[in-house]
Amino acid sequence: RVNGDRLWDSLMDMAKIGPGIAGGNNRQTLTDEDAEGRALFQSWCEAAGMTMGVDQMGTMFATRPGTDPDALPVYVGSHLDTQPTGGKYDGVLGVLAALEVVRSMNDLGVKTKHPIVVTNWANEEGARFAPAMLASGVFAGVHSLDYAYSRKDPDGKSYGDELKRIGWLGEEEVGARKMHAYFEYHIEQGPILEAENKQIGVVTHCQGLWWLEFTLTGREAHTGSTPMNLRVNAGLAMGRILEMVQDVAMSEQPGAVGGVGQVFFSPNSRNVLPGKVVFTVDIRTPSQDKLDRMRAKIEAEAATICEALGVGCSVEAVGHFDPVTFDPTLVGRVRDAAERLGYSHMNIISGAGHDACWAAKVAPATMIMCPCVGGLSHNEAEEISKEWATAGCDVLLHAMLETAEV
Amino acid sequence: RVNGDRLWDSLMDMAKIGPGIAGGNNRQTLTDEDAEGRALFQSWCEAAGMTMGVDQMGTMFATRPGTDPDALPVYVGSHLDTQPTGGKYDGVLGVLAALEVVRSMNDLGVKTKHPIVVTNWANEEGARFAPAMLASGVFAGVHSLDYAYSRKDPDGKSYGDELKRIGWLGEEEVGARKMHAYFEYHIEQGPILEAENKQIGVVTHCQGLWWLEFTLTGREAHTGSTPMNLRVNAGLAMGRILEMVQDVAMSEQPGAVGGVGQVFFSPNSRNVLPGKVVFTVDIRTPSQDKLDRMRAKIEAEAATICEALGVGCSVEAVGHFDPVTFDPTLVGRVRDAAERLGYSHMNIISGAGHDACWAAKVAPATMIMCPCVGGLSHNEAEEISKEWATAGCDVLLHAMLETAEV
Ligand SMILES: NC(=O)NCCC(=O)O
Ligand SMILES: NC(=O)NCCC(=O)O
Repeated sequence: RVNGDRLWDSLMDMAKIGPGIAGGNNRQTLTDEDAEGRALFQSWCEAAGMTMGVDQMGTMFATRPGTDPDALPVYVGSHLDTQPTGGKYDGVLGVLAALEVVRSMNDLGVKTKHPIVVTNWANEEGARFAPAMLASGVFAGVHSLDYAYSRKDPDGKSYGDELKRIGWLGEEEVGARKMHAYFEYHIEQGPILEAENKQIGVVTHCQGLWWLEFTLTGREAHTGSTPMNLRVNAGLAMGRILEMVQDVAMSEQPGAVGGVGQVFFSPNSRNVLPGKVVFTVDIRTPSQDKLDRMRAKIEAEAATICEALGVGCSVEAVGHFDPVTFDPTLVGRVRDAAERLGYSHMNIISGAGHDACWAAKVAPATMIMCPCVGGLSHNEAEEISKEWATAGCDVLLHAMLETAEV
Repeated sequence: RVNGDRLWDSLMDMAKIGPGIAGGNNRQTLTDEDAEGRALFQSWCEAAGMTMGVDQMGTMFATRPGTDPDALPVYVGSHLDTQPTGGKYDGVLGVLAALEVVRSMNDLGVKTKHPIVVTNWANEEGARFAPAMLASGVFAGVHSLDYAYSRKDPDGKSYGDELKRIGWLGEEEVGARKMHAYFEYHIEQGPILEAENKQIGVVTHCQGLWWLEFTLTGREAHTGSTPMNLRVNAGLAMGRILEMVQDVAMSEQPGAVGGVGQVFFSPNSRNVLPGKVVFTVDIRTPSQDKLDRMRAKIEAEAATICEALGVGCSVEAVGHFDPVTFDPTLVGRVRDAAERLGYSHMNIISGAGHDACWAAKVAPATMIMCPCVGGLSHNEAEEISKEWATAGCDVLLHAMLETAEV
């Protein structure tokens, strides 16, 4: 069994870096706080006897050697970056639980045939640079390195420039590493495990996603002196599209979600009808059919809404992944480990996207999920218990020992 | 008659300060650009033989002496501050036409019994610091100086601090000056004069306004892993309120408008349902009854919309003025001057708010309006013709000569 106290202490130490405003964290990708978090993680990995490699996306790979020089490594990890008002566990739990697995193996003097590589994927959140899971996407060959480097934050700073600026541009070619298997432990970010009173989520699938960034073009005009019939009101069109997205998602229940988290009005002045409104629709479902249908419906209905108002409408897909089925052998090992250790468990579909979804393109992959209080995530109030964290980390250790071969 | 070329040249010179990105201006209140514009205006006033006074709100008063030491001055002016993506004429035309009136009087060697005071009111736009017409509001006793100083821009900087920073905090008590009359020449910012092919708008009234700033409180949550039925979606509530505001305004046609120019999502991340959405509803109508009814309807229906979604809803009135009736004697002088000078004219109700609306609380006041191309304003593409500008300035000169008594 792992050392739950040690895992928890490391979580609390990491949470000191980039504190939020309400008990959580703001340690966004490629900020100074990200650099500080990376340095702390590196020092811990080195203290645990691992050697660090960094690739050209800034992803960190800490290796614990195996006994067979020809055996491919078992990768395990998640991400240390956070949302602007993020929690202390989203991603961080997965990286530090992976570290705890290695620390526990060290304590127990366990040697594995396959090396273990603890991984901190860069820019998982996609909050500062869309899309999410950017570095694992490049790793899996989904995005080019050029595309990734050219992604811009809201201030216009590029991924490539910021990676250099914080000093974490590595030399390794992205995706050159080959994996024997990939494991990721992550908080559920939803309410199901807690409601069902289960300690362990055995993740069988991940739902697919589209991020559709709409740019609506209206006519900037005075809110007071512009008669209603002469308005080209991009803000009103946005309001109608939000309602329509809700309707589309509700019409595909159960097993579909849709919503909008980001909206920019321009010039965003109280007495100016917006000339431009940019916002991103986020739709997800585990069904490939539904995902395609929802996207098509939303784009068609948005076009109709805008046309009726004379508003220009263009759409760019700034994020996408298809629904994922995780590797049945690894999924079985997670379930068996939970069973053996006496932890309550259930099958679950991941509602959020994870680096494991891209890793699944290039290796057998799976995930383990930890309940979170009230299903709350992407919220500074995100909370888990030490007991939950420890249970999942135990399961991770056992499933990995089986996969890395003692 | 005034010198239309000189007026136009001054407009073009002022437009060089704080250039926009599309041919207009970004010379927002209490920015460095505002300070630069003020200095240029001061130099012109001094060259025209006027002496400058500045009050504790930063409003500039340039005086041309009269012949009767006991006669109260005739005030004339508008504002030099602009929207973030503003035009070259909104406000600026009124200040520089007032200056041109004095320059023309100087050329003609005309002396008036009443002094003339050319005025540049501070923070008319309200884009950086709400509410609009802030300095004239303090002048008229509508707002306290403390209230005005405490107003914050989106970066949290206060009016009082920024006024000091740019070096335009004057010593004069705000509102201590007494006015014989107040004139303001302004572009229409709407489409009526151009459509009716009139050179001069004789402004009889100004419609009333409410700025209702809504703060909606949802629950920050993951867009992917939060089921539809567990969302507390403040963004969706905002979308429904935008549609409802449109409906309320349409139900009060003709003679009412309603819309939203400013929206802030928080944390404004693509995969986070917003915990907070702040936006301002702008409603206006010349009818006091309608204005009251629209406000009540919008607040009641917004509460119902939010309740249905479990979203918290609070409303703060961040701007307000009642409908204004301008002084019939001054209105008559404007109409007579237009008639005498052979300019086409019509009565018009101001759709926008103006410093004249507050001045009307403490003195006989009126306005003259200049057509603008396509009714476009609060848009960098705002345009007028030199002929229109000159015609209105001629009318201003004549109405003022009659009021200031030659
Ligand atoms: N786990 C997580 O929140 N990842 C970010 C990508 C997503 O929005 O699902
Ligand atoms: N004239 C003008 O645009 N003033 C700003 C106040 C308003 O929104 O009416």
